[in-house]
Amino acid sequence: MDLDYRNIKIDKTKIDYLFNEGKAKIYIKRDDLIGFSFGGNKVRIAAEIFEEIRRKGYTAVISYGSYASNLNRVIAQMACYYGIKCYIVCKQEKDFRTTANMKLAEYSGAEYIYCDVLGVRESIEKAIRISESRGERPYYVYGNSLGEGNEEVLLRAYKKAYNEIKNYSDKNEIHFDSIYLASGTGMTQAGLIAGRYENKGKEEIRGISVARKAVEAKKAIVRNLVNGKIFEASDIEMLNPLEMIKVNDLYLDGGYGFYGEGIADTVKMMVSRFGIALDPVYSGKAFYGMLSEIRKNDLEGSFLFIHTGGMPGFFDFMLK
Amino acid sequence: MDLDYRNIKIDKTKIDYLFNEGKAKIYIKRDDLIGFSFGGNKVRIAAEIFEEIRRKGYTAVISYGSYASNLNRVIAQMACYYGIKCYIVCKQEKDFRTTANMKLAEYSGAEYIYCDVLGVRESIEKAIRISESRGERPYYVYGNSLGEGNEEVLLRAYKKAYNEIKNYSDKNEIHFDSIYLASGTGMTQAGLIAGRYENKGKEEIRGISVARKAVEAKKAIVRNLVNGKIFEASDIEMLNPLEMIKVNDLYLDGGYGFYGEGIADTVKMMVSRFGIALDPVYSGKAFYGMLSEIRKNDLEGSFLFIHTGGMPGFFDFMLK
Repeated sequence: MDLDYRNIKIDKTKIDYLFNEGKAKIYIKRDDLIGFSFGGNKVRIAAEIFEEIRRKGYTAVISYGSYASNLNRVIAQMACYYGIKCYIVCKQEKDFRTTANMKLAEYSGAEYIYCDVLGVRESIEKAIRISESRGERPYYVYGNSLGEGNEEVLLRAYKKAYNEIKNYSDKNEIHFDSIYLASGTGMTQAGLIAGRYENKGKEEIRGISVARKAVEAKKAIVRNLVNGKIFEASDIEMLNPLEMIKVNDLYLDGGYGFYGEGIADTVKMMVSRFGIALDPVYSGKAFYGMLSEIRKNDLEGSFLFIHTGGMPGFFDFMLK
Repeated sequence: MDLDYRNIKIDKTKIDYLFNEGKAKIYIKRDDLIGFSFGGNKVRIAAEIFEEIRRKGYTAVISYGSYASNLNRVIAQMACYYGIKCYIVCKQEKDFRTTANMKLAEYSGAEYIYCDVLGVRESIEKAIRISESRGERPYYVYGNSLGEGNEEVLLRAYKKAYNEIKNYSDKNEIHFDSIYLASGTGMTQAGLIAGRYENKGKEEIRGISVARKAVEAKKAIVRNLVNGKIFEASDIEMLNPLEMIKVNDLYLDGGYGFYGEGIADTVKMMVSRFGIALDPVYSGKAFYGMLSEIRKNDLEGSFLFIHTGGMPGFFDFMLK
């Protein structure tokens, strides 16, 4: 087989109308249809990461995340495509289990280093040492071993996605009152906020937290925006980010990886009626949160849900 | 929830270059990215079926296939979307097992009627009786209880897909010497042949059989073309279809649903290096067959592989 390693190009994804819920008109942006590694937000983010890696000549990549991490799977597959060695530092938390994402990363030859939640920094440093001892030049996706420093690169992905949304809005004369999405690390939401800021957009960007309390999630988004040089720390203080940034933590349902009947039923409804697979850990939790907010508050207007992918997690859910 | 039952629109799918295998340049048409029900050829075919169903006012649909059938899953999900009752006649053959496709069809509320291979006709008739006794107007996807009569509708899907290929070829000045695809019922291949005939195209259309001996598969394609009014039976005889129609049965690997290491390794290679999921029952078997033919015969030219979907089957394979 003879590969010429073309750059993986992220195609624009479509926006479709789904249904009305009361007075709310719900649309969906199909980032799950990006044609590499089952799609999703992490493919956009990984494409930015690998552009840096290849431009700067790194020869290994280190990713970090939990057992259900979509980022880890995508980084492993993209590393395999470009012929770059991949290490994954994986957090073993209480509900730890083997997932389709982990199996896919292993297919791609990624090397796993497990750690507990307190040993993340040490494990990242260990991965860097192992890689360097093998004569590689490793690139850690989040920057330094504290997970900071690479925000500018990571934010680019959803700044670009915001532009796609804006182009759709302009072309179709549909203004979205709110954009909903799953909020985990806060990187996707921060990217959208950065895109809106640069475009002077008016949409409310509303994260449904899948793991953290709202205040922690908001602080992470602020950190991303400041480190990503979108705002100065002093601007952020002026803006009162804990008011301005919207994250809802009412749908944690027991925390990361856990979910109740409402989320499970939403995932089943979406796949059986609309042929769209959400996963209960991220996108399904967020879609359920959005629908619940609309119902509870009888919201009206046009709502755009960003489908951030997670197809392997859907099959974990269904085939478990 | 308030649905206005918009027609499910099949978006054009992209063609990407994959890699060179010796002197062969391999491209892929990503029908797996059609944004309903995990994509694939059966979504195109189902969209044609439901256009008929809704235009003619049927209130129930009957599908037929094996345990791994992608058609059954798509028909069930599309029926659920349009609010139409769905019955599935499912063949219980020797390697019968529960699949992700069956679970998805059940999520969508499809009613299963099991039969053995000899009782297909009786079971279709039984499904029609049950449906009519409930006051419904059932539509059987293949026509009459012998599975004939609806070819004109079914062929439309890949006549249209052929046009997409032609447009790509014209626009990019890339002529495909061969188009490869999985050959099961022969409907997809017959549709492509019909499209090529109407466009006076020159590509060799090569099916890799996933279940039947080549002579049986070719006869099925001839039947589809004659019943679909593409050729007259007399034309077909003149054309010598058993020579003209290309189906290769060297990669059956034990028959329908079975596969050896070569197919399994091909499925793993494609997902780990290219982020593309094939399934070992249909598309993975066909891709393996195409690669084997290219290697064995040192073929040269431009080859287009039609990715006919089967994502749920990929996860059956990986998570089994």
